[in-house]
Amino acid sequence: MKKLKVAVAGLGRIGKIHLKNLCRNFPEVEVVAVMDVLDESKSIADEFNVPFFVRNFDELLAVPGVDAVVICSPTDTHADYTIKAAKAGKQIFCEKPLDLSLYRVQEVLSVVQESGVKLMLGFNRRFDPEFKKIRQLVVRGAIGETQIIKITSRDPGPPPVSYIKVSGGMFLDMTIHDFDMARYISGKQVKEVFAKAAVMVDPEIGKAGDVDTAIITLTFDDGSMAVIDNCRKAVYGYDQRLEVFGSKGMALAENNFPNNHKLYTESGVSGDLPLHFFLERYDASYNQEIREFIDALVSGGEMPVDGNDGLLSIAIGLAAKKSVAEGRPVKINEILG
Amino acid sequence: MKKLKVAVAGLGRIGKIHLKNLCRNFPEVEVVAVMDVLDESKSIADEFNVPFFVRNFDELLAVPGVDAVVICSPTDTHADYTIKAAKAGKQIFCEKPLDLSLYRVQEVLSVVQESGVKLMLGFNRRFDPEFKKIRQLVVRGAIGETQIIKITSRDPGPPPVSYIKVSGGMFLDMTIHDFDMARYISGKQVKEVFAKAAVMVDPEIGKAGDVDTAIITLTFDDGSMAVIDNCRKAVYGYDQRLEVFGSKGMALAENNFPNNHKLYTESGVSGDLPLHFFLERYDASYNQEIREFIDALVSGGEMPVDGNDGLLSIAIGLAAKKSVAEGRPVKINEILG
Amino acid sequence: MKKLKVAVAGLGRIGKIHLKNLCRNFPEVEVVAVMDVLDESKSIADEFNVPFFVRNFDELLAVPGVDAVVICSPTDTHADYTIKAAKAGKQIFCEKPLDLSLYRVQEVLSVVQESGVKLMLGFNRRFDPEFKKIRQLVVRGAIGETQIIKITSRDPGPPPVSYIKVSGGMFLDMTIHDFDMARYISGKQVKEVFAKAAVMVDPEIGKAGDVDTAIITLTFDDGSMAVIDNCRKAVYGYDQRLEVFGSKGMALAENNFPNNHKLYTESGVSGDLPLHFFLERYDASYNQEIREFIDALVSGGEMPVDGNDGLLSIAIGLAAKKSVAEGRPVKINEILG
Amino acid sequence: MKKLKVAVAGLGRIGKIHLKNLCRNFPEVEVVAVMDVLDESKSIADEFNVPFFVRNFDELLAVPGVDAVVICSPTDTHADYTIKAAKAGKQIFCEKPLDLSLYRVQEVLSVVQESGVKLMLGFNRRFDPEFKKIRQLVVRGAIGETQIIKITSRDPGPPPVSYIKVSGGMFLDMTIHDFDMARYISGKQVKEVFAKAAVMVDPEIGKAGDVDTAIITLTFDDGSMAVIDNCRKAVYGYDQRLEVFGSKGMALAENNFPNNHKLYTESGVSGDLPLHFFLERYDASYNQEIREFIDALVSGGEMPVDGNDGLLSIAIGLAAKKSVAEGRPVKINEILG
Repeated sequence: MKKLKVAVAGLGRIGKIHLKNLCRNFPEVEVVAVMDVLDESKSIADEFNVPFFVRNFDELLAVPGVDAVVICSPTDTHADYTIKAAKAGKQIFCEKPLDLSLYRVQEVLSVVQESGVKLMLGFNRRFDPEFKKIRQLVVRGAIGETQIIKITSRDPGPPPVSYIKVSGGMFLDMTIHDFDMARYISGKQVKEVFAKAAVMVDPEIGKAGDVDTAIITLTFDDGSMAVIDNCRKAVYGYDQRLEVFGSKGMALAENNFPNNHKLYTESGVSGDLPLHFFLERYDASYNQEIREFIDALVSGGEMPVDGNDGLLSIAIGLAAKKSVAEGRPVKINEILG
Repeated sequence: MKKLKVAVAGLGRIGKIHLKNLCRNFPEVEVVAVMDVLDESKSIADEFNVPFFVRNFDELLAVPGVDAVVICSPTDTHADYTIKAAKAGKQIFCEKPLDLSLYRVQEVLSVVQESGVKLMLGFNRRFDPEFKKIRQLVVRGAIGETQIIKITSRDPGPPPVSYIKVSGGMFLDMTIHDFDMARYISGKQVKEVFAKAAVMVDPEIGKAGDVDTAIITLTFDDGSMAVIDNCRKAVYGYDQRLEVFGSKGMALAENNFPNNHKLYTESGVSGDLPLHFFLERYDASYNQEIREFIDALVSGGEMPVDGNDGLLSIAIGLAAKKSVAEGRPVKINEILG
Repeated sequence: MKKLKVAVAGLGRIGKIHLKNLCRNFPEVEVVAVMDVLDESKSIADEFNVPFFVRNFDELLAVPGVDAVVICSPTDTHADYTIKAAKAGKQIFCEKPLDLSLYRVQEVLSVVQESGVKLMLGFNRRFDPEFKKIRQLVVRGAIGETQIIKITSRDPGPPPVSYIKVSGGMFLDMTIHDFDMARYISGKQVKEVFAKAAVMVDPEIGKAGDVDTAIITLTFDDGSMAVIDNCRKAVYGYDQRLEVFGSKGMALAENNFPNNHKLYTESGVSGDLPLHFFLERYDASYNQEIREFIDALVSGGEMPVDGNDGLLSIAIGLAAKKSVAEGRPVKINEILG
Repeated sequence: MKKLKVAVAGLGRIGKIHLKNLCRNFPEVEVVAVMDVLDESKSIADEFNVPFFVRNFDELLAVPGVDAVVICSPTDTHADYTIKAAKAGKQIFCEKPLDLSLYRVQEVLSVVQESGVKLMLGFNRRFDPEFKKIRQLVVRGAIGETQIIKITSRDPGPPPVSYIKVSGGMFLDMTIHDFDMARYISGKQVKEVFAKAAVMVDPEIGKAGDVDTAIITLTFDDGSMAVIDNCRKAVYGYDQRLEVFGSKGMALAENNFPNNHKLYTESGVSGDLPLHFFLERYDASYNQEIREFIDALVSGGEMPVDGNDGLLSIAIGLAAKKSVAEGRPVKINEILG
């Protein structure tokens, strides 16, 4: 069997996860090169016996025989790298978002389309066993017509303000996952967004022009609705829940816990907190998303999350920002034009 | 001990609950008269050995020695009866809402205030053990500053369309309980309402000018938020849940079930549905609310839910209606003037 | 309708519960007399407007027109009172156990049988909604052939040692409920008992000749089994759980809680302790058992728990004591002879 | 870093798990050889790039440089292979049980001791995150003095009768894990065993001289107790639960599920069945046990489960068999002599 030759760009937290999965769990894959701007990252390449360690993306593309690139570098490089990879004829997996500018995203997608390569966006939560199960229940009709989707998504703590300043804001940085989830679970298109937001966690976040707490109502094209509640800081840890209500019933996905023990003492019944953050909570989903990417490449099938999914989530995020700024519901068409 | 003499107006489902509680569980109370427009209701009076059964409210007020009235007749009589009772110097418990017209409610409250009698509104859910527990956690600071309140409130099925037509609409008929709950749990005032609604249960409800499914975002005066999701029909029964998220944690109240059994078979793990509807779910709360009414009368203390609570919930409901009609967030001040 | 005239003997905790239920919830019942050895108990009779308050059982039986007696006096009076009531032709509800001596119980049952009156034993847990539900699942075959029954039964704290000395020991005083539950749930007869016991809560209990912690294995006549674990003291409160495992599945009844809230904070997820003790936990079951007693009297139907149920539970308890004393499994036939 | 050279004997289900873990997750380990009696197994060796594939244990030991062997071959080879490996000076991980004969086990342990190599027994459940958590709670005193341990252990279905015939019986084949768990959780020694057993799943199992359903009561040296309930067939899947009750509280470990979704429909609330069988349920524990074996080798520390643990679990199993055969509690000293 000829192995699929993969190159990984960016060895931050997510990059390392993908690299490890690709090296350990895919006999059909050979990771031939990794790229990172830090010299220290070379040791990671060595640990996984990756032949080439390079310092910039052009060099990565120049490594002989690369079939596909996995882009895990910072957000502001995604558009540029994706365009370069597409032009070089490489298959592409890119972490979300493609870019914070809708115009730029459209440009990237246009290049990708022309080049004929495949592009998968890293909305990893779609591959979480909990949410996949809920989606399956929706698809097989167990819930009937979906009427209300409720997504709770709260982080254990905010990122540094320095990061927040360049993040594009909470809606594009954090809620974007929830926008994609609402689309994935419902299988419908969002037509209107109303967002109410506040700064309740840290005034510095407000000074940086962003919000940290929000409730966002989405209206789908058939009039059904979704509601997302976000906070940058839940002291009890990562809160990731989903509920779908429809004409035939309701399905819930609760949080995941490190174990299911209960302790009964004089002072009450207690148990552990949910899994701490995304690395723990979405461990299986990172594994599964890269598997489906590889499977789609090997089989020649459709990518499970494509460029258009990335585009629409950004559009919803921009509508949410505009909704907060103008204090009114915003139609997606106002954004997409 | 001199007993407190109580008269009950209206022997529908709620009236019967209050009558039964007052007769069985209050040695300090004597129910001296009941009123109902139906002759058949006389047998109920007899069952509980109530001396007087009358057919109209004036006769009820004329029964000698009545200290307090419990008004459980249809909504469109509440304002009139409350005014009459106040003018007659009777203490008043009145089921919600006082009236569907804000102007009329203000008029009633003005009369009550002048008369010096006490008025309690029947927001029974405040007395539910689950929600009381959550309120206690908020009060004692266990959750810190409240940031997001989430209320799920879905009925097992819609009332007849004939009722819906005169109900004032879902927001004044059903959601009004949730508006009061948001105020009760937070202890804050609502300053803005955005409601998104749809007709997803029965087109006849839409033809009657109402909605049956909604997501309502409330903004409190400190910028914190609440979100309510409603549906007139949940096939799995009555869905009544509450979640409070704050700077120090989160508290959840889940649904109540007739029992907690779990059955494991080849096809999965299953259990019973939640308690079917408000009579089952809020059995204890009806009992407790009338107890707190009687206690306040006997002790001379404050009423736990007063006329202003009734007024504000109606104002929020009217704001929600206006929000749907005009497709924009509505300030409470636009309603209260 | 001619009312059923009931007399209540003994106004301790259980007696008061039955008195209150009979007076408040049974229009078809008139409580005509109560008996208690304490003068102070007269005020209870007055509170419920009971016409006669007497100081001994003979006087109680002499009150004109008594149809049925409810015996809630101390255990050592049960046999004597039941015999007297039977000879006087009164229908009888008697708290468990009839007596601690198997011979005496057989004597009582013989008198009852001759007299033709009905006798119901107060195994209230059979009427608990949780356990009733499990029994229904067994009866309708949802679990298939029952193979293993597991009963957890732990008290929040031991009774005074003075009480323990005259209680007949833990197996006859506390576990007797669990023996009856095993028979009720399975619908089978116990043929062998093995009990392993220890003194782990309080050495004074050991000095009094009793045990406070035990695991008891019952073998039914078809070879299937039940296991009971007991402790006189669970610091987290009253622990009452049931599990039935069979050829088609398993059903579980978990503990009941005062509310179902969950609190998430930095230090973990917590909730309230189970309902504290039998008065709280079995509130509904006390109500239901006396209802089924009255219903059986009014309808002329079978008593849901009869004298033989009392006899067999005592026999199992005596077998358990013998098993501990002799360190071996004991056949019920060794006890019943 | 010099790598630890490991050889794996037996490529059945468990052998493959250990091989995969050793190859993928241990940079400090090099699997230099595998042995299996089936030619087909060579492809597995190739998949993991293992240099030597051999057909018998002597050849495996003869592979140059082997530091440690992992013995996953059938039970009747364990004693022989362990002795050979010990005499060859190899460190040893051996799946349980060492042998079905207590005498033979003692002989093996004697050889191991003389040879000075380390031996770890594969009681993988000790490394399960759920049970480890409970053990930690016990160790740090959160439960106080342990008084009652309850272990539920039921398989989704029985092995073939042909296997049962050579398995040593349910107590030595299946319950042995639970005996070890009782010792691990309590940290105490078992002094007496009473087992009650039946054939309720399949009469063929009875004809083969074995039982398929049992309740076993263990008494520890301090008088505290454990109770285990077993069945070879639970139609709802693998049932693995643990409860520890003590003077300060209780801790429970419930089953693990593939996901935590709940589906509410008209017919009830349902969810998925527990993880199907040991491969799914104890996936993490297999990984962790081999990690602790390697860690102990690398660090020179104590083995977390040693030969004596294996010996005592077999002694308890033999006592349980004797208890069923003779219908009485059996002291461990009767077995150990």
